[in-house]
Amino acid sequence: MASARRSKLDPVAPRDVPTVVVSRLSLYLRELQRLVLEDRATVSSSQLGKALGFTDAQVRKDLAYFGHFGHPGVGYRCEELIGAIRRILGTDRQWTVTMVGVGNLGRALLRYKGFASKGFRIVAAFDADPHVAGVKIEGIPVYSQQRLVDVVRQLRIQLGMITVPASQAQQVADQLVSAGIEGIVNFAPVTLSLPAEVGLVGVDLTTELEQLAFAVANRIGTR
Amino acid sequence: MASARRSKLDPVAPRDVPTVVVSRLSLYLRELQRLVLEDRATVSSSQLGKALGFTDAQVRKDLAYFGHFGHPGVGYRCEELIGAIRRILGTDRQWTVTMVGVGNLGRALLRYKGFASKGFRIVAAFDADPHVAGVKIEGIPVYSQQRLVDVVRQLRIQLGMITVPASQAQQVADQLVSAGIEGIVNFAPVTLSLPAEVGLVGVDLTTELEQLAFAVANRIGTR
Repeated sequence: MASARRSKLDPVAPRDVPTVVVSRLSLYLRELQRLVLEDRATVSSSQLGKALGFTDAQVRKDLAYFGHFGHPGVGYRCEELIGAIRRILGTDRQWTVTMVGVGNLGRALLRYKGFASKGFRIVAAFDADPHVAGVKIEGIPVYSQQRLVDVVRQLRIQLGMITVPASQAQQVADQLVSAGIEGIVNFAPVTLSLPAEVGLVGVDLTTELEQLAFAVANRIGTR
Repeated sequence: MASARRSKLDPVAPRDVPTVVVSRLSLYLRELQRLVLEDRATVSSSQLGKALGFTDAQVRKDLAYFGHFGHPGVGYRCEELIGAIRRILGTDRQWTVTMVGVGNLGRALLRYKGFASKGFRIVAAFDADPHVAGVKIEGIPVYSQQRLVDVVRQLRIQLGMITVPASQAQQVADQLVSAGIEGIVNFAPVTLSLPAEVGLVGVDLTTELEQLAFAVANRIGTR
């Protein structure tokens, strides 16, 4: 890409957008989708911010990283902004996803209806337990973990969710990487070591409680 | 508290610490606990950073928000830093926790062994399904949701985790608040409206996939 001089009003390169801004895009998207269900056609930055506990200036600043989406005297057109955010996030396309580890958490995620509507299609799951392999959960086939590399390659699966115990997570991640996975969401409470070109998002359920404890112990508002 | 003039080296007030720094404290804590299990007594900022994919400068800067923890020529003493981080996070004490919604996700969280060792003791769970109420899961009694306010008050439960469907989450949150809860971790994919003095951490499992999609679609390293 030509490194032309940018004006301050131009969108910035995705790699220069703070992670926290990207995570707020998910919140804006969810709120906009809720508004559309209520037949709302437009929303102002202050209405959108108020529903999520942010200021209107915050909303405008976040979106300005990616372009100009507001219309003078109208605000944001909900459907238009939904389309724009989905394009930005990369969820305007279908992603194929696999889940490794079909315990309680894995089952909860397989049954969660929200993924498909956001563009994430879980096409295969894996488990080390031979009693679990062979069944279907919500129509999703569960394979033996021994077949992981073959099946992920064959189905060209792009993203993986790891819900195995911490002690097995790195080995599963290595298998996913060798099968050509592009990104991993890791629910196991361990830090994974992956090649730099593989995306990684770690979810530690204890961390969320720790963040809450910090806020409550220090009497800090979390919004 | 006296608002004495602070030198740049003094710890800052908890409310002035960026959220992202607090979330990294959880990662440092987890890595330090892993090192102790391996009988390591000390660790340098660069070793600690390397294990988590951060620079040594990042580690030192994050910890400097809270005080001086390093020892010249030694680095950090693992046990000492664990104690300090737990005090900072507020997890050096026991927190009583309840879980509302005993579906797959609720069950996964009830069975998760990590909470108790981090100071979070789940003492009661609630479910709207009369077939689920009355049982014990991992020794934790499951009550009918109708008894929520009474039981939470009686047991003086401090923190709540909400794992009910989105349509019921606000109502459950209102009940928890009226029962005197101090903070909520919300797993339902909806934004809750709570009084400012009640802590709130929202966990949206789709958001994690969206963050990963953004990174993969834009070929951005996530570390």
